[in-house]
Amino acid sequence: MFELLDLSLLVNWLGLFGIAVFAVSGALDAARKHMDILGFMLIGTLTGLGGGTIRDVLLGKLPMYWVIDGTYVGLCLLISCITYFVAPKLASRRKTLIWMDAIGLSLFCVTGAQIAVQEGAAPVICVCFGVITATFGGILRDVLCGFDLVLSQRELYVTNAVVGATVYLGLHWLGTGETIAVFGGFIAALALRSAAIIWGLSLPAYQSPKK
Amino acid sequence: MFELLDLSLLVNWLGLFGIAVFAVSGALDAARKHMDILGFMLIGTLTGLGGGTIRDVLLGKLPMYWVIDGTYVGLCLLISCITYFVAPKLASRRKTLIWMDAIGLSLFCVTGAQIAVQEGAAPVICVCFGVITATFGGILRDVLCGFDLVLSQRELYVTNAVVGATVYLGLHWLGTGETIAVFGGFIAALALRSAAIIWGLSLPAYQSPKK
Amino acid sequence: MFELLDLSLLVNWLGLFGIAVFAVSGALDAARKHMDILGFMLIGTLTGLGGGTIRDVLLGKLPMYWVIDGTYVGLCLLISCITYFVAPKLASRRKTLIWMDAIGLSLFCVTGAQIAVQEGAAPVICVCFGVITATFGGILRDVLCGFDLVLSQRELYVTNAVVGATVYLGLHWLGTGETIAVFGGFIAALALRSAAIIWGLSLPAYQSPKK
Repeated sequence: MFELLDLSLLVNWLGLFGIAVFAVSGALDAARKHMDILGFMLIGTLTGLGGGTIRDVLLGKLPMYWVIDGTYVGLCLLISCITYFVAPKLASRRKTLIWMDAIGLSLFCVTGAQIAVQEGAAPVICVCFGVITATFGGILRDVLCGFDLVLSQRELYVTNAVVGATVYLGLHWLGTGETIAVFGGFIAALALRSAAIIWGLSLPAYQSPKK
Repeated sequence: MFELLDLSLLVNWLGLFGIAVFAVSGALDAARKHMDILGFMLIGTLTGLGGGTIRDVLLGKLPMYWVIDGTYVGLCLLISCITYFVAPKLASRRKTLIWMDAIGLSLFCVTGAQIAVQEGAAPVICVCFGVITATFGGILRDVLCGFDLVLSQRELYVTNAVVGATVYLGLHWLGTGETIAVFGGFIAALALRSAAIIWGLSLPAYQSPKK
Repeated sequence: MFELLDLSLLVNWLGLFGIAVFAVSGALDAARKHMDILGFMLIGTLTGLGGGTIRDVLLGKLPMYWVIDGTYVGLCLLISCITYFVAPKLASRRKTLIWMDAIGLSLFCVTGAQIAVQEGAAPVICVCFGVITATFGGILRDVLCGFDLVLSQRELYVTNAVVGATVYLGLHWLGTGETIAVFGGFIAALALRSAAIIWGLSLPAYQSPKK
């Protein structure tokens, strides 16, 4: 059954979905800063496309994919606008932001690692590109909005991206086929992130000695 | 008469002027942070060249234009030094900064869009490159100096860049000739920004529900 | 005797050493933010590779050297992990951070200028690349951790990078041979930085008029 799916199409749709949820999370951060609708569009688009943009600059895949095809930017602008009008109706914007961010993180850690594999990078570098793609959009969002980095919060943020990318790489090298590898990595990352959010899991934070 | 102007020369001079005013605005932010003269030069140069640099990285126009031709960096360094000595004599540094920033913004939204048009990008992407070129130098400046983003202030900041780039694109596609299109976009952006500064115009900021 | 050293090997080792000390400084900043071990690895790696990465993007040397060769990322990850466990035992983490940063700064201002010379850039641009390579890793670290920029502190931060790069360029153009030029630049930068740290040297900070 899995063979029937057109893989590149699937990855493309997942990529668009990841961009969309990150754009929502960016727009919700703009809401916290009380920006106007164009601020929403700027921060939403930066968050949606930021991780993939930094990944492609580092890999030298220029000009950017979103310069050539206007769909990606158009999608982010549209989603950010919708968020501007819908956000006041959300019961909990903070909760929505966290879960949107979790889904985007879980998708992008896999697609980032996948692209690095296609470029022939070593495994440790592929995991890094999973982390870069998954976290740098959110890092950009937090730096631009002047919030404390999501990184310095608990809840296994970078860990999830490492786990998702590693599971994907493992399945990829076991030869399970890309569809299973992609879903396996995505589900591993999302499950761990969900558990971390729900039960407040965390790695031990660094403790300063005697104080 | 317009045909008599050497267009590429004109655009080049306008570009240098935009870089210079952004360098002044960066150096004035360094003044607010009480940096030394080399801090002025660093922040001034980053602000002057930052927007165009990010634009060219995304378009894959590497190595950077300012690596090949030392004029741009030299200009920023010179302007930043002059600002270091002149700033104490300014009646209102804050006001100077705002107006320098307004002129730079209005110039760069047009030249950014123009370069994207030359690369054959779709209209929505051309407007984005206008916004990127116009605002990212200032965003870099604010992030590095630890100030609240100019974005989250009122006064139509991103809006101006969108309007300037759109007017330029409209005139360009109407076939008015580049000189008129460039000046039209510049004047539209500057007029709107001036009105916004003087009368405090703004788009409605996002309002949190019931609070 | 100097001719006996294999220069490219030497520069490679110095580069690795510079990356390692910057990774330590990044990891120590992560300690100040009480991050978990993966936060240490992320901030350590970003600080170690950030300056060189921005340099190579601007020069168009893509894909990144550390994408092709996993050694650099592996080194940063390893060093950051070790720092996580060793940091509590350091008598003064703050002091260690400052000196690690000083060594990294002094090495990278020279290697950055050297790479720009190899690309045929003008002298002022070569000095800029020395500054970019030496300071942007630390700037990234400070922005991501939400600390005040090391730039806005006294102690001649940018000045050291300028001096190191300039001494290297001077010796290079005098034809002393690369080994002497590299060491001369490194020692000049480190001596000045040490003096600045020990005796609190600084350039005059910008003073606001009448206040």
